[in-house]
Amino acid sequence: MQIKWVVMLAAAGWALAQAADTAVPAASNVMNAQYPAVFADGRATFRLRAPNAARVQLQPGGSDNGLGLQPYDLVKGADGVWTVTIPPAVPGFHYYWFLVDGVQVNDPGSQTFFGWARDTSGIEIPSPGEDFYATRDIPHGQVRMEWYLSKTTGQTRRALVYTPPGYDQEARARYPVLYLQHGAGENETGWTRQGRANFILDNLIASRQAVPMIVVMDHGYATAPTAPGTPPPAAAPGAPAAPQGPTAFERVVLTDLIPVIDARYRTRGDRDHRAMAGLSMGSGQTLQITTRNLDSFSWIGLFSGAAPAGDLGTAYSGAFANAADFNKRVHLLWIGAGSAEARLMTAIPAARSLLDARGIKNVVTFTSEGTSHEWQTWRRCLREFAAKLFKS
Amino acid sequence: MQIKWVVMLAAAGWALAQAADTAVPAASNVMNAQYPAVFADGRATFRLRAPNAARVQLQPGGSDNGLGLQPYDLVKGADGVWTVTIPPAVPGFHYYWFLVDGVQVNDPGSQTFFGWARDTSGIEIPSPGEDFYATRDIPHGQVRMEWYLSKTTGQTRRALVYTPPGYDQEARARYPVLYLQHGAGENETGWTRQGRANFILDNLIASRQAVPMIVVMDHGYATAPTAPGTPPPAAAPGAPAAPQGPTAFERVVLTDLIPVIDARYRTRGDRDHRAMAGLSMGSGQTLQITTRNLDSFSWIGLFSGAAPAGDLGTAYSGAFANAADFNKRVHLLWIGAGSAEARLMTAIPAARSLLDARGIKNVVTFTSEGTSHEWQTWRRCLREFAAKLFKS
Repeated sequence: MQIKWVVMLAAAGWALAQAADTAVPAASNVMNAQYPAVFADGRATFRLRAPNAARVQLQPGGSDNGLGLQPYDLVKGADGVWTVTIPPAVPGFHYYWFLVDGVQVNDPGSQTFFGWARDTSGIEIPSPGEDFYATRDIPHGQVRMEWYLSKTTGQTRRALVYTPPGYDQEARARYPVLYLQHGAGENETGWTRQGRANFILDNLIASRQAVPMIVVMDHGYATAPTAPGTPPPAAAPGAPAAPQGPTAFERVVLTDLIPVIDARYRTRGDRDHRAMAGLSMGSGQTLQITTRNLDSFSWIGLFSGAAPAGDLGTAYSGAFANAADFNKRVHLLWIGAGSAEARLMTAIPAARSLLDARGIKNVVTFTSEGTSHEWQTWRRCLREFAAKLFKS
Repeated sequence: MQIKWVVMLAAAGWALAQAADTAVPAASNVMNAQYPAVFADGRATFRLRAPNAARVQLQPGGSDNGLGLQPYDLVKGADGVWTVTIPPAVPGFHYYWFLVDGVQVNDPGSQTFFGWARDTSGIEIPSPGEDFYATRDIPHGQVRMEWYLSKTTGQTRRALVYTPPGYDQEARARYPVLYLQHGAGENETGWTRQGRANFILDNLIASRQAVPMIVVMDHGYATAPTAPGTPPPAAAPGAPAAPQGPTAFERVVLTDLIPVIDARYRTRGDRDHRAMAGLSMGSGQTLQITTRNLDSFSWIGLFSGAAPAGDLGTAYSGAFANAADFNKRVHLLWIGAGSAEARLMTAIPAARSLLDARGIKNVVTFTSEGTSHEWQTWRRCLREFAAKLFKS
């Protein structure tokens, strides 16, 4: 994986150097797999051997997936290998799978990524000239698997923790912390594997566009042992939060995770140096948890999901009721989405108007051009958001 | 994942508490997946929805897999769901996949694990009373993703690094290092995901059966840029090493990886505090690299693969030529395998006889009862080997 990323992404002139009619293995492939293969213009060729199948299709993962809207039919060759070359896709990472006579089948040539509540295939479509998530020859931070016992759930949980370059060497330095959450059907691995969050931070820090920070990516599901059930549903984008008590996940974050991180890492453990952001379901969790706990957070990032709506005088635990107080306490309320997320392209300007009318400042909105409810949007959101963090 | 491990493995009385006719989701399942499900006696039920398929089989991953030797036929229900319950399996982790009209299909209910050169399904069969790899409520070490630029390959590589509990807090402590390699078709994630190496070390350290150590798990493939080609082939178990120069992987370990680890971690960087071990292909790499570099290693672990054979006066870079010298320099030559690995049950005693005849001391051999060329063997090997490391 590392090899291909360096070759395909770090070289700025890659797209020009590659002949238009030559495909190379996708950066998301398992080692030595030649397919799927990507062309410089974003086309991609997929192959699957299935001699006995009557129909093989490529299913993009989701109705707004950058690979296209409908399944593609593969064509069977004399050797029993089915193949298709799809039209130029949106740059970035896209979930997909094959449908072999209706059964969902992972592509053996692809690594799997946890999405859609299972380990599924994904393909990285190069984005010529856009290398902020490439693996470069610069100092790299670590990503640490951190296990901790949750008093809330009674279970041992795992978070992934990015520590910036030099963390172990600069033994007296202390760092601000960003809590960063995945979407529904994904887990704590999404931000580094699909999102390449660690490389985005490495690159921002190396170019001094972001301050060195710790990033904590937790497992966004929790169930208290006295109330067995299902994970919290995805927040409806743009919908006001219903008044309710803390979810089990909120209690995990506030009473289990933050104390563990502050105890085990050299953090700056005050609210001015603690941020939370999330994508889709994670943005709903972020809006709810931060507004209920402004004594713990002062930087808020909402990616492709939640956007304040409704009566801001009463919603969101009353966080917006007193604008002067909110403005004093919240250094940044950052809201972003992809230009192809039609509903959010309306909901975010509406949220902005509501916030402006109420006198809420420190609001930044962002549109990722040409992308949808997908990881390229969230990579760009992280780049923009992280570059603003902890700077006031 | 964390949840189920605690429930299923940490409770010593689990097997007794579970009714014999009740199946529970396998610890290796993705979250919320009810199947595959395991019974207390080692039986397991598998399910797959495939309404249009003519034949669905469960294929154990390998001819000596603990799930059985042959594919199992699943039976189709009226709802289009195919199912099978297999006889009691060998305890531990087993690779498998479905064959749907001949196409290899991952089980959507299983996490995927990198083996067989792709991300494939696996199932954890409980081992009643055997909990040395359980996730317990004790201090846990971290597993860190460490990226480094290899001068040998010209590429950025990733190793996983286990740091023991307390590593960050005891800022002046220095630690010995075990380099631990996976098998052919696997990668640097195998030892923690399939092998649960970090939990094995956590448990050994908590019970003072092992000294705190760092464990480095690298990606066991390397190609020098001037000689593009395939990864080194798996070492034939028991075969003498052919005389040859260092492989690209040996050069990575000696000139890239060890200097990086010694620079970035608080190691005890001398040969007395550096071990290497590996399974299958990794044992061949270990035997070759350690015997060629006895100035760098003094503890050697061979799991289910290499066993010294041939003329020990000349083979293995002459490491055994002078027994007194070898005995002075090598604190432990540890060789283990599963009792169901028929060839190694002959090759390892033969190696022992050769070593004894030559006057080589500090040899330990081990047999994992009832297991084959599989992860339960290697978990047990690691437990036994790690408990002996760095103690003389």
